[in-house]
Amino acid sequence: MLAMVIVWLKAYLGGFAWNGGLQEFNVHPLCMILGMIFLYAEATLVYRVLRNCEKLKVKLIHAGLLCFALIAMIVGLVAVFTFHNDSHISNLYSLHSWCGIATISMFCAQFVLGFLIFLFPEANSDIKSTYLSLHQFFGGAILVLAAISTISGINEKLFFVYAKKPKSYSQLPGGAVFGNVLGIVVVIFVCFILFILQKTEWKRPKEEDLFFEPILSEGSDNE
Amino acid sequence: MLAMVIVWLKAYLGGFAWNGGLQEFNVHPLCMILGMIFLYAEATLVYRVLRNCEKLKVKLIHAGLLCFALIAMIVGLVAVFTFHNDSHISNLYSLHSWCGIATISMFCAQFVLGFLIFLFPEANSDIKSTYLSLHQFFGGAILVLAAISTISGINEKLFFVYAKKPKSYSQLPGGAVFGNVLGIVVVIFVCFILFILQKTEWKRPKEEDLFFEPILSEGSDNE
Repeated sequence: MLAMVIVWLKAYLGGFAWNGGLQEFNVHPLCMILGMIFLYAEATLVYRVLRNCEKLKVKLIHAGLLCFALIAMIVGLVAVFTFHNDSHISNLYSLHSWCGIATISMFCAQFVLGFLIFLFPEANSDIKSTYLSLHQFFGGAILVLAAISTISGINEKLFFVYAKKPKSYSQLPGGAVFGNVLGIVVVIFVCFILFILQKTEWKRPKEEDLFFEPILSEGSDNE
Repeated sequence: MLAMVIVWLKAYLGGFAWNGGLQEFNVHPLCMILGMIFLYAEATLVYRVLRNCEKLKVKLIHAGLLCFALIAMIVGLVAVFTFHNDSHISNLYSLHSWCGIATISMFCAQFVLGFLIFLFPEANSDIKSTYLSLHQFFGGAILVLAAISTISGINEKLFFVYAKKPKSYSQLPGGAVFGNVLGIVVVIFVCFILFILQKTEWKRPKEEDLFFEPILSEGSDNE
């Protein structure tokens, strides 16, 4: 997915630069897909992939990956706002941008609440367990919102780039087919992540189960 | 949501007619949101809302609502294809349409498999319980795909309708703001449905629990 977005932006849409032009705009889809789809999704999987590691370590990796996602997202936002301002294009009018702002707001709220409740200063265990199920639900919901923003964004970009004949979007030139396939790949990626997240058997066992397991296996070793 | 889509299409985009023109196109967003978002979502909720009713009755209501969703979806598809053909516009080139076709294909596969395995001729209970978790996952995934298709579709439509100044999309005329708000309402609706679906406490109890419950309560009545 990441290789495809780089090839799409470099080979078909003019590559990258920080010059206030379309090449600066290209930093936007790259950073948003890197941050809000790829790194964000990896962060949600950490509790599954490292489900037998020490909890604090896994929490820090989860938070660390989300910090990288946050940085990529900020760079992607700066790129599109400075491009719009330099080219005298209005900001935040399309439904794509409204969905994007909704995604980012929910991401930031989830980030701050997660930090305060699970990491520092860390709430008491009643609040933690009540909030955990909401944190998990919104974790998936933010990924769904990010997918909605990504697909509407790629679709919008392809209508802008291939606006005129003979290279209109409806003639499906190379870059349009490539962009469509990239969109479908993003959707498949997000579906796989959601599948992994809802699979009960792959969830991290609760602390008490982790605690009892070694005792039981020690017991059977001694027999 | 349904009231909003009707107001948006009637008050801002010219209303409905079956004349091969833009008024026929308007049947497309109406039927797709009615079928693939509203009726589809209601069908997924039936096992929660009627969770203490007889299983076969609930299955038939679930299948019945999905039949209505299928009919609305077919009418919506016929509307857009005949509009495109009559106006000499290419079919199925945009990422919106690719996502839409993916959504519909998955919906049809899920419909046929669900019918064969759960209703008629009905598979044995091993196959049923193995397939049930997949059916539940794809039930949510299809709703996510429908939301992705809807948002990219509304976004695309608003760029088409408000293409030129002074009523360009970036000036946010009334119909554009209304369309954006409709999109956000669809996203909120889908998030609520996904929240209800993942909530374990609201799931239908397994058959054996339903079977044991009356015996237990009879017992305590007799005491």
